[in-house]
Amino acid sequence: MTAPTPSAPLFDRLVIIGPGLIGSSILRRAHENRAIARELVASDIDAGVCARVRELGIADRVEADPARAVVDADCVILCVPVGAIGAVAAQVVPAMKHGAILSEVGSTKVSVITGVLPALASRPDIAFVPSHPMAGTEYSGPDAGFPSLFENRWCLLTPPEGTPPDAVARITALWQAMGAHIRTMTAEHHDRVCAIVSHLPHLLAFTICGTADDLAGETRSEVLDFAASGFRDFTRIAASDPTMWRDIFLNNREALLEMLDRFMADAHAMAKAIREGDDTVIVNRITRGRAIRRTLIENRQA
Amino acid sequence: MTAPTPSAPLFDRLVIIGPGLIGSSILRRAHENRAIARELVASDIDAGVCARVRELGIADRVEADPARAVVDADCVILCVPVGAIGAVAAQVVPAMKHGAILSEVGSTKVSVITGVLPALASRPDIAFVPSHPMAGTEYSGPDAGFPSLFENRWCLLTPPEGTPPDAVARITALWQAMGAHIRTMTAEHHDRVCAIVSHLPHLLAFTICGTADDLAGETRSEVLDFAASGFRDFTRIAASDPTMWRDIFLNNREALLEMLDRFMADAHAMAKAIREGDDTVIVNRITRGRAIRRTLIENRQA
Repeated sequence: MTAPTPSAPLFDRLVIIGPGLIGSSILRRAHENRAIARELVASDIDAGVCARVRELGIADRVEADPARAVVDADCVILCVPVGAIGAVAAQVVPAMKHGAILSEVGSTKVSVITGVLPALASRPDIAFVPSHPMAGTEYSGPDAGFPSLFENRWCLLTPPEGTPPDAVARITALWQAMGAHIRTMTAEHHDRVCAIVSHLPHLLAFTICGTADDLAGETRSEVLDFAASGFRDFTRIAASDPTMWRDIFLNNREALLEMLDRFMADAHAMAKAIREGDDTVIVNRITRGRAIRRTLIENRQA
Repeated sequence: MTAPTPSAPLFDRLVIIGPGLIGSSILRRAHENRAIARELVASDIDAGVCARVRELGIADRVEADPARAVVDADCVILCVPVGAIGAVAAQVVPAMKHGAILSEVGSTKVSVITGVLPALASRPDIAFVPSHPMAGTEYSGPDAGFPSLFENRWCLLTPPEGTPPDAVARITALWQAMGAHIRTMTAEHHDRVCAIVSHLPHLLAFTICGTADDLAGETRSEVLDFAASGFRDFTRIAASDPTMWRDIFLNNREALLEMLDRFMADAHAMAKAIREGDDTVIVNRITRGRAIRRTLIENRQA
């Protein structure tokens, strides 16, 4: 495997397994910019998805059989739910060509890497570069993708120790061509960061929606009427795909439960302060929350 | 007190005690639309605020002494933090003219009404119409107000039993002239609804900001880098004024702690399901959260 020359595309054959929101967005971007790959191949377990990708014309070839799809590919990216990545890797790795790169786009990393490593045990020639593009919408499926999805978003890479630097450089170049900014870290660190910035907020948003839904008739309907007072902003993230989030919660169980424990202890402390009328604790907590929020605004992330 | 004729303004003299974000927005709207009141009077405990309101030119008269400000007014609206409403009512009610209307704009109602009633015990001629305009920004003070703040927002009225219907009708007309939609309910019901739609979401947003702030160095700074993945949306409401929120939490203690208890029980159930890998409970919870969120979107509130 050599670094691409300016005239040659980054990859000769790029394969997307699971052309949903993320996978079809990669295809769309690569279809627009042929410097990314000479040939784009898509494969999905669902015949309807395969048919739709053919109709959309965002891949050069669509294969129903993933093991057939990956033949002679330089790079295979698994864009399936995190709970399925290990099984799909076991299916495709034996059919991959010598020296190819395997990547995936899961939102959790420790359990995904643990799930993929057995498939790679007998194929030390395959470089594995896990990646997590931090981008998405509440929609899913091949129609939901768009070429600018990754523009100015972060993509976190968590290559296991010993991954060939050349493979990391090529996956970095791929995501840069998608418009993303790259950060490299360990899988363990990735899972802790994502637990607090994404998985815990989603868990709390789903939970408060359920709490509201359990209220008696009149109050329940008024939650919808008066949601503009905070509830609405708070639950903006609660419309996402249930299967995807179940998989994320279960696959990042350890880090997520640790962050949830910390949060619950803090919420208990706040409840105690409110119950006992402890002004200092309440104001201190609000002031700290406000300071973090203001830092976000200053960082132009708000 | 008689209903206004088309040619006469709704009130002859309208007094705003505490011209901050809410109070100065009422003044600005009434200053633009002189059908609301012939004379606008403002008063504030802070000499700097009085001077600023004079400079802004949004009141016809500014009085440092609230008891002096309310003389001969048809309507006095207390726009001070909920923790101060009872004390300010005790100060102004004795100076109010026979048959005048007292109102206030606090975000909680049971404790505010309990705090105001002693001042009214010897003045059965004063009609008390508590109101809660559900509008605001993260800014405060007389410069933060603007005339369209209440446009298309809800204003909840919680008149105690026995309040003269004419007074309720005039306060309704006032808020309609501000552009608001009116809903009337009991104070108890108001406090439960606001606990779930506003106070609990704010409490959780302040809390998760504190939890993130407690994390060790690298993870903490990455919360800010990667906040776009959920944390940012979740904490959008956490930038508000600490004193105001301390007062709201303490003054709606009972309803807020009840909603927090329900929420914590639901979060514990979710944690248990994640720990035990109970797919059904997790998916059910996510699906319900998503359904409520989608209802909000369909209601055009999202």
